[in-house]
Amino acid sequence: MSDNPAPPADLAASADPGEFGIGLRYSLHPASDNFVDVILGAISATEQAGVSDGLTVQTDEVSTLVRATRAPAEQLLADYLTRTVAEATARMNGGHLVTHVLFSRGCPGEITCEIGDLAPPEVSPITLEPTGVDAVAQWSLYPLMDGGSAHGPHLAPIERAIEQARAADVRVEASNFSTRLRGDLAAVVATMTNAWAGVGTEIPHVVTHATISINSPSPKEQS
Amino acid sequence: MSDNPAPPADLAASADPGEFGIGLRYSLHPASDNFVDVILGAISATEQAGVSDGLTVQTDEVSTLVRATRAPAEQLLADYLTRTVAEATARMNGGHLVTHVLFSRGCPGEITCEIGDLAPPEVSPITLEPTGVDAVAQWSLYPLMDGGSAHGPHLAPIERAIEQARAADVRVEASNFSTRLRGDLAAVVATMTNAWAGVGTEIPHVVTHATISINSPSPKEQS
Repeated sequence: MSDNPAPPADLAASADPGEFGIGLRYSLHPASDNFVDVILGAISATEQAGVSDGLTVQTDEVSTLVRATRAPAEQLLADYLTRTVAEATARMNGGHLVTHVLFSRGCPGEITCEIGDLAPPEVSPITLEPTGVDAVAQWSLYPLMDGGSAHGPHLAPIERAIEQARAADVRVEASNFSTRLRGDLAAVVATMTNAWAGVGTEIPHVVTHATISINSPSPKEQS
Repeated sequence: MSDNPAPPADLAASADPGEFGIGLRYSLHPASDNFVDVILGAISATEQAGVSDGLTVQTDEVSTLVRATRAPAEQLLADYLTRTVAEATARMNGGHLVTHVLFSRGCPGEITCEIGDLAPPEVSPITLEPTGVDAVAQWSLYPLMDGGSAHGPHLAPIERAIEQARAADVRVEASNFSTRLRGDLAAVVATMTNAWAGVGTEIPHVVTHATISINSPSPKEQS
């Protein structure tokens, strides 16, 4: 046995956020004839504020892909999403805006998810300043089993994440096929981000989707 | 042993679509000041055409929940979604419209998914008439492991579904965190519905999400 053997490459302490495929896709849907200006204005304002530092941002026909290139990935992504949605809301003058977002981790490629033996990056809970924007979101959290963790009680992390959400600064309501979150935009984004990242410490490939509605003209539900 | 024992209730041949939680949630996002008329007009026209027969339709603050109450559940749901989106598109006069949809099966409840020993309902591939509406969709397919099938190669059904999609009348393009489908609205909906239902014959709880974009002003990608 030699002294100081080099550690095997696939046993690195933890992956960087890029290698681990930590990022999101989002799309803004202003219910307005002026939607192009709202979207481009919000994205531009967020970039000019420096909130996209540490991220790569790439807009295509359907959505914008945002990937973290450094830690703290979850905080950078949540800051970016919250700021962009708040900037778009400010440009709507009280009008209706919907955002769709999916956060993904553990699947850096396209169809296949090859992370080998990379250990998940360290995760710390994120915090966001309140925005003053009221939001209601349809939220789903999906631990996927293709990342090498095909055993164990997979509903348990979801139930734990929902319990933690109940303790946060949002109202959590069960609904068919999804969970409803209601509160300040920042609290909604923080809740879904922390749940997704928290499950990600147990299961490598985790995706979460939310449809976040602001200033809907539909009457609020009683609950 | 008695003659003709009654079969145990939990060994019924197959669940009805309601018991198995086969349904969808969708939301229409017209990029228009006139969005309320577009949405309500499309839903109303679809109902008046009888395309919501066999379904329960319930609109809330964020989205509309559509559940099948009889077979063929997948065909009824796909017909409904395609017709409603086509009706909304017709009301946009060439303007930009985005639809977000999630199809779910195998989780009839809210947070927990208790289908017991129900066998999945029979599934037949669906067919839809072309609509003449060009669509591009960001599509994701998620087999979930909480339904009692926690063993086996879970990426295999996904890869098979994507192979089948490639053989269908859509263009299939890999992209990060999702797959891109491009073609007639009906072909896009048929592809995602058949993939979701097909995986559902192997894994009880399967969810698929799509963000379907029509008449986007963004330049089409070369590929």
